[in-house]
Amino acid sequence: MTAVNLAKPQDLDRLVALVGDYHRETGIDQDAATRRAALAPLLEGCPHGAAYLVGPGRAPIGYVIVAFGWSVRAGGLVGRIDEIYIRSGVRGRGIGAEVLSTLPRALAGGGVKELSLAAPAGDDRARRLYQRLRFRPLDDQVTMTRTL
Amino acid sequence: MTAVNLAKPQDLDRLVALVGDYHRETGIDQDAATRRAALAPLLEGCPHGAAYLVGPGRAPIGYVIVAFGWSVRAGGLVGRIDEIYIRSGVRGRGIGAEVLSTLPRALAGGGVKELSLAAPAGDDRARRLYQRLRFRPLDDQVTMTRTL
Repeated sequence: MTAVNLAKPQDLDRLVALVGDYHRETGIDQDAATRRAALAPLLEGCPHGAAYLVGPGRAPIGYVIVAFGWSVRAGGLVGRIDEIYIRSGVRGRGIGAEVLSTLPRALAGGGVKELSLAAPAGDDRARRLYQRLRFRPLDDQVTMTRTL
Repeated sequence: MTAVNLAKPQDLDRLVALVGDYHRETGIDQDAATRRAALAPLLEGCPHGAAYLVGPGRAPIGYVIVAFGWSVRAGGLVGRIDEIYIRSGVRGRGIGAEVLSTLPRALAGGGVKELSLAAPAGDDRARRLYQRLRFRPLDDQVTMTRTL
């Protein structure tokens, strides 16, 4: 059973390092100061999201960031997996799937009614994995986004 | 210039009626008490979203609900159009588009870095409208969701 613990202010450096690894691996180009500023509030009680460290507290092997939002149709508070990352050296052992099956219970306990994520289109392996974890694809909608 | 005003606690009945119209029109099956409970917090300072009434305060012709969330990649606070509705009798006059071009300025002023929405897949008219309003389709991802 892999530990999944809410990250606290003293975990910031560890979290920043892991998020940097993820961003480098996926080609997200973000300077270190912006990244740190986007993560720190999540460890300090900001209501819009929470970060969880996966594995041993002092040597985490990954993280999950959940953003909180609202859906009238869903009846209130909802969550979205903003980022999930497992270090490459321990990948392929089902740790990510374990995290994604543990987390919904904890979130439901906190009043979250629905959890969503963005899967890469055309990645059938990821899609099947998420479907096994009871995520249903919303193929009838396309997310559109605008930078403000 | 159509007015777009943040809904306040005294607007709850007007908002509930409009949201009921929208849900009936789009086939969202939700009982009145659940709908009311999902709307009331948004008028009372809940950090997860805000409701705006479109048109005259005492006789609104529509509404927009914006949910607030967090994106590390976007650098912090983000918004999502949870629902937007313009009464059928005044539809087709560009009021929705006007709202969607006014709102980003107000949200940006409140620190929101990115605004997203879900467009119906295959609805080219809606897609073109949103693109004119500078929303970019994320065709490389599929939203997947799980009820908790």
